[in-house]
Amino acid sequence: MRIALLGTGAVCHALAPELLSLDHDVVVGTRSPRTTLEANKAYARLASRYPALELRTFADAVPGADLVVNAIDGPSCVAALTPLAPALVGRVVVDVSSPFDWSVPDAVLDPVNTDSLGERLQRALPRSKVVKTLNTLSAQAMTAPALIGDGDHTVFVSGDDASAKAVVSELLTSLGWKDVLDLGGIRSARATEMMLRMWIDTSAAVGTHMFGFKIVR
Amino acid sequence: MRIALLGTGAVCHALAPELLSLDHDVVVGTRSPRTTLEANKAYARLASRYPALELRTFADAVPGADLVVNAIDGPSCVAALTPLAPALVGRVVVDVSSPFDWSVPDAVLDPVNTDSLGERLQRALPRSKVVKTLNTLSAQAMTAPALIGDGDHTVFVSGDDASAKAVVSELLTSLGWKDVLDLGGIRSARATEMMLRMWIDTSAAVGTHMFGFKIVR
Repeated sequence: MRIALLGTGAVCHALAPELLSLDHDVVVGTRSPRTTLEANKAYARLASRYPALELRTFADAVPGADLVVNAIDGPSCVAALTPLAPALVGRVVVDVSSPFDWSVPDAVLDPVNTDSLGERLQRALPRSKVVKTLNTLSAQAMTAPALIGDGDHTVFVSGDDASAKAVVSELLTSLGWKDVLDLGGIRSARATEMMLRMWIDTSAAVGTHMFGFKIVR
Repeated sequence: MRIALLGTGAVCHALAPELLSLDHDVVVGTRSPRTTLEANKAYARLASRYPALELRTFADAVPGADLVVNAIDGPSCVAALTPLAPALVGRVVVDVSSPFDWSVPDAVLDPVNTDSLGERLQRALPRSKVVKTLNTLSAQAMTAPALIGDGDHTVFVSGDDASAKAVVSELLTSLGWKDVLDLGGIRSARATEMMLRMWIDTSAAVGTHMFGFKIVR
């Protein structure tokens, strides 16, 4: 597949090498490619290590992509993606974002409870197929499930379009995920986004970001 | 131990027989014992099956109890327990409540995100030792962890008093729990209470209430 990975942070650093190794074409989208290459040293290192990665503006990264990953930081992703709505018509948009404002010391979620970033994104892109997933994990754990408990934990998918969830579930399986649980429509993004508070406290309690939630049934 | 179990709903029905079988003295607290015995047929059956259960008013159930369990419905529990603050000084109060108003069709949490029922209860009972636990499970699963995945899942404890968490953890172990994870202070009740949205969606996705969350690390 041709995959547009929007955002040059931790999720991009985890996903891009894995997706390339699975023989996908990967285009990375950023606000300003020149600024990213000049000011984001971690990304510059990634780019020099993986010459196949193409870096473009958000708008130039999307055309031709079979699947688009929203890995833009939570507070700004809806505003960043809204202008791309026409280019994203009919596309699968994988949303891994978290509604956390990390700039606040005592992090709280916004939106929460009666709305979610997944739903906001689906409303902003009404003719795209938004699938929320991977957002209950550290970036490193997203693409390396086997590093935690031999991969015996659960990844969740939420979305209104069954065929889009099937495409995403297959991609997750190719990344090593064994237990992909379909939580329902995009409304269920509230559930996984509200687990962020649990993720933070659990992370502190177990002393590592490398843990996963398993639904035992 | 002498345990006061406040509330006559599903949690009481699950906990009371197990606690009796572990040789604890169990006193059940309710607003009006006469009304409960007359109008709550399920409780009347429980009482006739377990004659050792004593039914008292909330106020009469608490004195002499080593440990008090708040199994009163979420929206009203803080108001119901606040008048008992003097009798609860120094006591361990196990809070299993959920901040759900089940009377609303599209259930949302209140409080959420910036507060929790566990914290409200601790503020209402400042000289008691509130420990939030078991609230990520159906009532039936609370006392029968082994019925789910051979008991290989996690129960969480949140509270500001380490000795109270130790007492509660020991009680949980006696109920069959193998993985008791200390999440931190009572503030971390926010985390487990916010998992309720996940509990509901997961319950629908897997088609049963008998599931558990395991922290795989």
